Amino acid sequence: MIGQLVVFGVGLIGGSFALALRQAGMVRHIVGFGRSAENLAAARAASVIDEIGGDPAAVRDADLVALAVPVGQMGALLAAIAPHLGTRTVVTDMGSTKQNVVALARAHLGAHLPRFVPGHPIAGAEKSGVEAARADLFQQRTVILTPLPETDPAACRQVAQLWAACGAQVAEMTAAEHDALFAAVSHLPHVLAFALVDYIAQRADGARLFSFAASGFRDFTRIAASSPEMWRDICLANGQALLREIAGYEAELARIKGLIEAGDGAALLEVFRRARDAREAWLKGQ
Amino acid sequence: MIGQLVVFGVGLIGGSFALALRQAGMVRHIVGFGRSAENLAAARAASVIDEIGGDPAAVRDADLVALAVPVGQMGALLAAIAPHLGTRTVVTDMGSTKQNVVALARAHLGAHLPRFVPGHPIAGAEKSGVEAARADLFQQRTVILTPLPETDPAACRQVAQLWAACGAQVAEMTAAEHDALFAAVSHLPHVLAFALVDYIAQRADGARLFSFAASGFRDFTRIAASSPEMWRDICLANGQALLREIAGYEAELARIKGLIEAGDGAALLEVFRRARDAREAWLKGQ
Repeated sequence: MIGQLVVFGVGLIGGSFALALRQAGMVRHIVGFGRSAENLAAARAASVIDEIGGDPAAVRDADLVALAVPVGQMGALLAAIAPHLGTRTVVTDMGSTKQNVVALARAHLGAHLPRFVPGHPIAGAEKSGVEAARADLFQQRTVILTPLPETDPAACRQVAQLWAACGAQVAEMTAAEHDALFAAVSHLPHVLAFALVDYIAQRADGARLFSFAASGFRDFTRIAASSPEMWRDICLANGQALLREIAGYEAELARIKGLIEAGDGAALLEVFRRARDAREAWLKGQ
Repeated sequence: MIGQLVVFGVGLIGGSFALALRQAGMVRHIVGFGRSAENLAAARAASVIDEIGGDPAAVRDADLVALAVPVGQMGALLAAIAPHLGTRTVVTDMGSTKQNVVALARAHLGAHLPRFVPGHPIAGAEKSGVEAARADLFQQRTVILTPLPETDPAACRQVAQLWAACGAQVAEMTAAEHDALFAAVSHLPHVLAFALVDYIAQRADGARLFSFAASGFRDFTRIAASSPEMWRDICLANGQALLREIAGYEAELARIKGLIEAGDGAALLEVFRRARDAREAWLKGQ
């Protein structure tokens, strides 16, 4: 049970974290900060937060500070709160990339670094804003924590317990492993989906093409409904790992193109079967 | 209203066509042919068909013959039924590619060609078999007919009316236009999805990667659950148009890769915004 939670960025993720902790009876008072006064007012009206924060110095009274802003804003935010953090305040973030957040924390948090616990809840993000927040968003979802060698184990344990109280399963790995892993299973597919929609949209016959697109196209491109700002930030923050994955995918696509060119039905069938079977096995194992 | 309908391939598409026509009161007697005796027995038991066909010569009594088999089997099937077709029997198909089916019809149907109406119902195909068939599968869906210059307008009109009775909207275009269009909005995304799953599955750390894949990955790859045989056939049948689309997509992806390499956040944001907005506009217009 924590006394005061301060959430920066009361949107889908930050708002759902606040709602889930409150529903679990794990928090007494929640202060919300954000760039949109309108969104904060909505969060207050919906009792997602108890109080709209004004002065970042308010973090001095917090037991936990949760940074649920796009990774591109993380540096400025860490710099703004660092001078005001109480000695026992734990700080965690919910950014989609971790090495860059860790680097920013190292740059800004100074002596407070051991009480910073980098985190990433794996929860859909096509919707945004506090209206989309739900107390059950993290039920059965995975939350990854990437503690530093310096991280206080007690701080890490506390953040893990709070996520567990939200219904999430907590996994730990290094920030580098996290970024390599999500470059493959999340960042790459997002770029591929954005690329397909943009490829069609930019064509002279794009409108006619879209008019015949069906449910397969809709599902394939659902992740292209995600926040462009968030994905710009992720591409920049995890560029190296993402570029490796794009290159690997290009090689796979070139190989399939070669099979189509050669009319090699047997090899195409093998690729498609292996893919379908792998996907089926994955879904069964979930 | 037609007297006898003969369906070759009583699976998701052929079975749903039979169910929809029966429910609309448009057909008196339905004969089903197929490679799987088990599937045909299930279709008979579920009253999707009235009779299990034995001799292809039975098509001589049909008012309509519907070819709902994978495009790879279309040639052999056309050759088998051609000698037995009655002079007034209309033949239509439901293949996902059209130019190759038209070429096969030209090769095999001889004098019967004017009563062949090439068609393609745009309906999801991740499931297969008659158990997946539903009378409402084609409600609000598009069916594309690609009549030949020689096609009898009355035959085309009859097939269009039957699809309309199934609840579908019927569009007409040339087979070449159909194939170019679906190479972009259907065949390309399927290849991209198969490629991503195969790319992950083939890696030494594939199992671990899959274990962190989430709902975005699941939706992006849903179309990779489709029939490998069907997609091999489509890749071979529409290879030229598909290769053009893969090349165009590769160029788009290379451009995005360049933006990530250059750290060009403004240009990445523009791509992602354009994609998201185009997708939103498309969904609103549906």
